[in-house]
Amino acid sequence: MAVNQSNFTAGIDVGGTKTFVCIADSQGTPVLKKKFPTLKGTDPDVFFGWLFTEMHGMLSKEGLQTEELSGIGMGFPGVILNETGILTNAPAFSWPATDIRPIIRKYYDGPVYLDNDVNMAARGEHWKGAAQGKRHVLMITIGTGIGSALIMNGDLYEGADGASGEIGNWVLEASYPSHISRKAGEEFGPFENVTSGTSIGVFARKYFCFGERVSSIMDMAGGRVDRIEPLHVLKAASEGDQSALWIMESPLNHMAMGIANAVSLLNPQLVVLGGGVAGSSSFYVNEVRRRASKLTPLPLHIEQAELGNEAGAFGAIAAVRAKMSSDLDSRGSHSR
Amino acid sequence: MAVNQSNFTAGIDVGGTKTFVCIADSQGTPVLKKKFPTLKGTDPDVFFGWLFTEMHGMLSKEGLQTEELSGIGMGFPGVILNETGILTNAPAFSWPATDIRPIIRKYYDGPVYLDNDVNMAARGEHWKGAAQGKRHVLMITIGTGIGSALIMNGDLYEGADGASGEIGNWVLEASYPSHISRKAGEEFGPFENVTSGTSIGVFARKYFCFGERVSSIMDMAGGRVDRIEPLHVLKAASEGDQSALWIMESPLNHMAMGIANAVSLLNPQLVVLGGGVAGSSSFYVNEVRRRASKLTPLPLHIEQAELGNEAGAFGAIAAVRAKMSSDLDSRGSHSR
Repeated sequence: MAVNQSNFTAGIDVGGTKTFVCIADSQGTPVLKKKFPTLKGTDPDVFFGWLFTEMHGMLSKEGLQTEELSGIGMGFPGVILNETGILTNAPAFSWPATDIRPIIRKYYDGPVYLDNDVNMAARGEHWKGAAQGKRHVLMITIGTGIGSALIMNGDLYEGADGASGEIGNWVLEASYPSHISRKAGEEFGPFENVTSGTSIGVFARKYFCFGERVSSIMDMAGGRVDRIEPLHVLKAASEGDQSALWIMESPLNHMAMGIANAVSLLNPQLVVLGGGVAGSSSFYVNEVRRRASKLTPLPLHIEQAELGNEAGAFGAIAAVRAKMSSDLDSRGSHSR
Repeated sequence: MAVNQSNFTAGIDVGGTKTFVCIADSQGTPVLKKKFPTLKGTDPDVFFGWLFTEMHGMLSKEGLQTEELSGIGMGFPGVILNETGILTNAPAFSWPATDIRPIIRKYYDGPVYLDNDVNMAARGEHWKGAAQGKRHVLMITIGTGIGSALIMNGDLYEGADGASGEIGNWVLEASYPSHISRKAGEEFGPFENVTSGTSIGVFARKYFCFGERVSSIMDMAGGRVDRIEPLHVLKAASEGDQSALWIMESPLNHMAMGIANAVSLLNPQLVVLGGGVAGSSSFYVNEVRRRASKLTPLPLHIEQAELGNEAGAFGAIAAVRAKMSSDLDSRGSHSR
């Protein structure tokens, strides 16, 4: 592998809708950022051809070449372990299990670090966001679905099979809930079915199906129940709309219970809430914090994520920089 | 500190009822074991005077002296961090917050490692029991109360304030359970109130208060409701007694939910169940495993602890041996 001197690294957050590319200089400072609508409906070869062409265009405007990058980190909306590089369970693409690294190798042969998007976002918040300097962090993203990632002893903790953080599957029912456990093929788990942005939208549309109610949610949705979006509910709730507050009760209580239980188990220094629902206003995070604090005797610190949708790309830069530095260490000690 | 050549270490598990002392040779093989009824109702000075006198008697029979021990590990039934050495929340002793190390120093000036009993038991199971060779382990002890400990990346994980594993506080109710969250001064948390051995006994005594029922539980209790013990219920349940099975439904379901949720979050290689309830028969562990497996899509491995009430003393030996070895490493690297 050619050693190059530029020390620019790329972080790429591949999302179901948008793909965000960020280039950082040798100090890790982001110097170029660009967001592309994700190319969908193609096979992996075409997708990565597209991605590297876009990045090439972005770099060449600054007189840089892809091969000058000293490393690339990439986060994906699916299950992937850096060790294997096999992407599975990525509903945004309808690819079969895909071995990513050989495809990337057609365009770039330097160090590559691959992980799922939530782990990358947690790395980003740990590197430059809300979780800077914290050794033990639980990050939860509340958007279309629910994701989570753990930083323990200052490092990402991935679990025995790289499957840690699958909290969408949490079950929080007092009666034995065999009927709500996740069925094979179901996209969402029980906790996700109550707390995700998707479920907030479903609850709201059901709520307004039962008849006329005065609510700013209906105004935002243009009077049409089928056009109610989760963020309408969150905005209305933050302004004190009674219907919105009623709809948010169950999602907020379940999220508070889940977080309190995780805190009782893990005693983290910080819980970071990211994703569109948590980022909608301070209402959501404040309400979760207020409710969760009653449900665990342990110290509870909950903060909103700071990097928004840049966290994943920043985390991808942090991941590949950490990998390059540890590779350097191990080469160093071997040669001693 | 005098360097000594014996390389014997002591592991002491201070329990509310029994105190177990184990001496291991230089290979870590236990060579002496003794269990004493714990001296209660005294102040810390008298307690440790008693403890070291008992250990002196035990050692001198073999021609050994306390000062010849190359290290002592001690587990306590309360909250304690090795870094501070302050024991708090130990209901078995009615001591105020107690700085343990200066008292031990009156009798022994070698390396000492202090931790709570559940962490020590997890270390024991990791060193010589059910969790040997596993890097990511959740251990839960189900006895009078509920305790838990985490081994992550091969090491005990203690959390930001040394308070990880406080799962007795878990809240598993679908409706917002402000009324069942732990109140200040309450000994047990909500999860503990449903799953502990104590609660199994309470459920059973309530059950039989409602009138005559044919059950082997009543036979074991000599026909007296007030004499029903948790282990009567577990024994009867393992033999198919219908009343016992009915009583165990809620404790088993809640334990299964809690474990499934922890597995979805942490993806451990193994969950080890210890304590008197889990150790009563294979019925308990088998039932928890069967129920929990329906509640998480992640790989689920649940095993019974192997070391019984020796786990804590073994873990205390493992802890002080690990500390001695890491102290040696850091001294080694400083002198290079």
